[in-house]
Amino acid sequence: MTPYDTFKKKMQRIADLNNTASVLSWDQETYMPELGAEHRSQQQATLAGISHTMSTEKELGELLKKLSGDKTLTAAQQKNVALTLKDYEKRKKYTTEFVEKISQTVSQCFVAWQKAKHENNFSLYAPHLEKLVELKREESEFLGYEKHPYDAQLDMYEPEATTAQLEKLFGGVREKLVAFVNIIRSQPQNGDDFMHKHFPKDKQWDYGIMLLKQMGYDFKAGRQDISSHPFSTSFSPLDVRVTTRMNENDLAEMIWSSIHEGGHALYEQGMPVEEYGLPGAEAISLSIHESQSRLWENNVGRSLNFWKYNFKSLQSTFTDQFKNVTAEDFYKAMNIVKPSLIRTSADELTYHFHVMIRFEIEKALFEKSVNVKELPEMWNTKYKEYLGVDVPSDAQGVLQDIHWSHGSFGYFPTYSLGSFYAAQFYAQAKKEIPGLENEISNGNMKPLLSWLREKVHKHGRHFTSEELCIAITGEKLNFDHFMNYANEKYSHLYKLKPVAAAM
Amino acid sequence: MTPYDTFKKKMQRIADLNNTASVLSWDQETYMPELGAEHRSQQQATLAGISHTMSTEKELGELLKKLSGDKTLTAAQQKNVALTLKDYEKRKKYTTEFVEKISQTVSQCFVAWQKAKHENNFSLYAPHLEKLVELKREESEFLGYEKHPYDAQLDMYEPEATTAQLEKLFGGVREKLVAFVNIIRSQPQNGDDFMHKHFPKDKQWDYGIMLLKQMGYDFKAGRQDISSHPFSTSFSPLDVRVTTRMNENDLAEMIWSSIHEGGHALYEQGMPVEEYGLPGAEAISLSIHESQSRLWENNVGRSLNFWKYNFKSLQSTFTDQFKNVTAEDFYKAMNIVKPSLIRTSADELTYHFHVMIRFEIEKALFEKSVNVKELPEMWNTKYKEYLGVDVPSDAQGVLQDIHWSHGSFGYFPTYSLGSFYAAQFYAQAKKEIPGLENEISNGNMKPLLSWLREKVHKHGRHFTSEELCIAITGEKLNFDHFMNYANEKYSHLYKLKPVAAAM
Repeated sequence: MTPYDTFKKKMQRIADLNNTASVLSWDQETYMPELGAEHRSQQQATLAGISHTMSTEKELGELLKKLSGDKTLTAAQQKNVALTLKDYEKRKKYTTEFVEKISQTVSQCFVAWQKAKHENNFSLYAPHLEKLVELKREESEFLGYEKHPYDAQLDMYEPEATTAQLEKLFGGVREKLVAFVNIIRSQPQNGDDFMHKHFPKDKQWDYGIMLLKQMGYDFKAGRQDISSHPFSTSFSPLDVRVTTRMNENDLAEMIWSSIHEGGHALYEQGMPVEEYGLPGAEAISLSIHESQSRLWENNVGRSLNFWKYNFKSLQSTFTDQFKNVTAEDFYKAMNIVKPSLIRTSADELTYHFHVMIRFEIEKALFEKSVNVKELPEMWNTKYKEYLGVDVPSDAQGVLQDIHWSHGSFGYFPTYSLGSFYAAQFYAQAKKEIPGLENEISNGNMKPLLSWLREKVHKHGRHFTSEELCIAITGEKLNFDHFMNYANEKYSHLYKLKPVAAAM
Repeated sequence: MTPYDTFKKKMQRIADLNNTASVLSWDQETYMPELGAEHRSQQQATLAGISHTMSTEKELGELLKKLSGDKTLTAAQQKNVALTLKDYEKRKKYTTEFVEKISQTVSQCFVAWQKAKHENNFSLYAPHLEKLVELKREESEFLGYEKHPYDAQLDMYEPEATTAQLEKLFGGVREKLVAFVNIIRSQPQNGDDFMHKHFPKDKQWDYGIMLLKQMGYDFKAGRQDISSHPFSTSFSPLDVRVTTRMNENDLAEMIWSSIHEGGHALYEQGMPVEEYGLPGAEAISLSIHESQSRLWENNVGRSLNFWKYNFKSLQSTFTDQFKNVTAEDFYKAMNIVKPSLIRTSADELTYHFHVMIRFEIEKALFEKSVNVKELPEMWNTKYKEYLGVDVPSDAQGVLQDIHWSHGSFGYFPTYSLGSFYAAQFYAQAKKEIPGLENEISNGNMKPLLSWLREKVHKHGRHFTSEELCIAITGEKLNFDHFMNYANEKYSHLYKLKPVAAAM
């Protein structure tokens, strides 16, 4: 075995463990019986501990340093080595003590969050969250950052993103989006009553499977199951699973969560399997992952072209529910813009206000300008300011998301970045793929999927988010693409006067 | 932490890994998509390698030796230490090289077996099986044995069992059972046409769930799924799963495989959860495990009393199928004795001939009096001799079982031992539990389950099979109990003259 092969073998073993941990999580969310939880968290902790030991072992570090100077390696191999060395050095900053402490704190915090949300009592959660925030601040210190302690948190989900960059980006978003949403909200609103009729689960299920197949999701290398919070997960590019949920009184939940998770899964299925265990078969960042799910969910799945093709089959599946409804009515219903309380059910425009609120709160937490006890007040004030809504309870307010209880700070911004990248990539796809929209309106998703495979999926994380964006579109992330998309779409939907394109 | 706590913690971590491997296997048999297989076997191999390293590490050995002399430990703690030390010493005999070699060989052998069975071509399998048998013979040598190399194989599944003991036991079985089956076969035969009507899967499923609940299987600590070969598996006493299969043209498959696997699962659910990772929460042997499944499947599940209670609900579930059928007809149909080709569908009497044939072949393989190429001929000759059937193809003959392709030699005898232990335990239960049969005929399984919990489940493997048998029944395994059970049951079913009880 060459040193590179030894390195690859070591990384594959670590991936085997991490992917096994993902199987445990998948099982936990889908099939695990109630009482299985106790030992499951212990089993997860054991795997995490072993994985941490293996990925910080001295021999691996030495091998990586040796390989770093090896000019006989191909460019791709050198990239794998360089990225792994960077990961290695980052992981070495964690002591086993810290890893164990944070794992325990997260377990307790998560349980407290569940209870607090259930009982609408933030004070049950606050002391645990406080401890966790303290540990995460400590983590920022030992990981290191240039300007803002929150940068170290962002870097975990979005390598190279900084607080300053995001402030600038969100500043522009706020300015443009607030005005635009106000115009929309002043127009007569569309209706969606027919989305809330009764939709039997078995028919919803079959319809969702059909949509996934149409997108190109490979059921030989994946499957769909049910979970209370839809997610996608990968155990290798040949076993990438999705989940969905079905609400018999709201068809939208299943349709767009299936498409969304399908988009994530197509990214994972498109990774080069021969790079298993290496950066060459890993996602670039959460924002690029999210760009894939949002592109399918919104740019494709909430477009008129997509439903020009699919509405016929939807109507024949749910004949009574869609009697006297047209594809255009359906298109309007799925794109109603309406400020609301809950992030996960927000429309694709006001969604970003939910993210900005969380970004501002997280930033404040890490610069210690707010403490945990003050979060409900800060939350409610910002919801009034950005969305004009009164938060009736903490359960529907500051307690709505799971993320903080997991210690995930810096995660939310990637949702917005993902939407913006999606708009920019999709605008480029329209330029490069002849008759793309026409293909979609004929039910042919292959040209789009092939383009994404070639432009995004096959590279693993050999690009950064920004490098990828430049490679594909010739420029850095530019919010104007999202605004152009929004302008074009919503001017039609809400009969607005066409706005001058931003670029 | 005391040294005992350190030991316990180490064992729990190893159990976490092994139970995780069981989750992977469960997923593989139930939900894994087709293409997931490739990385799954690699993930399994990685877990097995890490588990082997952890359970043979020097520190564990030193700790165990230190604890072995510690008289301040409770008797149960001393037992845990002693048994773990024995396991440790056995595991230390395996080199990593051997572990990896056998794991590869098994993978190849299994694939070859599948293909050979599918194409009815033994020669595709033979060279792989030959290699595997060679490795297993080598294993017997380094593990060591007193008299027969096959003893070392038996010991893996049935600690302390020997070839000589089994030869003696099976000698008696053969003598008594051949004669008894001949008498039965000379009588007019009962019919079972109604078992082969059409039974819709969804109704079968619900009925099977009801039976499991009735037995006392806890669905909060388990679940049932579908797999092509039913099995049960445990990830902790609080997460013990079963699978079943359903044939719409044969109700028997679901009913008795669900009850059988339920019996295995009740054993695992009955283990003391605080002993997780230690011998105190492990099964004694495969034969004792099988005694639990067979007791529920045969002594209970194929008894008239059980169906006196349940036939009414069965009939109301499958009204048309059981029109004009009585509980007694149903009881007769589920107990037809008929020599056949396939072990897994054999009746509870001729079943043991299938086992004896395999025992004799395995013994011959390990004493090198037969080679792999000659197996089909040996198989077919013995089937003619013991069961009077002509084997029409190797697929229905020597290729029918998966076991050898997995390298499992010495496994089959535990099936028969399990049945014999079940008969002996059940005879004792009838003596000790007031009105046991009456309770069962009223659908009350609690007294039996409580008795099994107390007598078998709660002890983990702090007894050997033989010690447990003596503790419960006052004597070693005695085949006469099985013959008494068979005599009583089949004399009634086949209207034989009552045979004098053997004891």
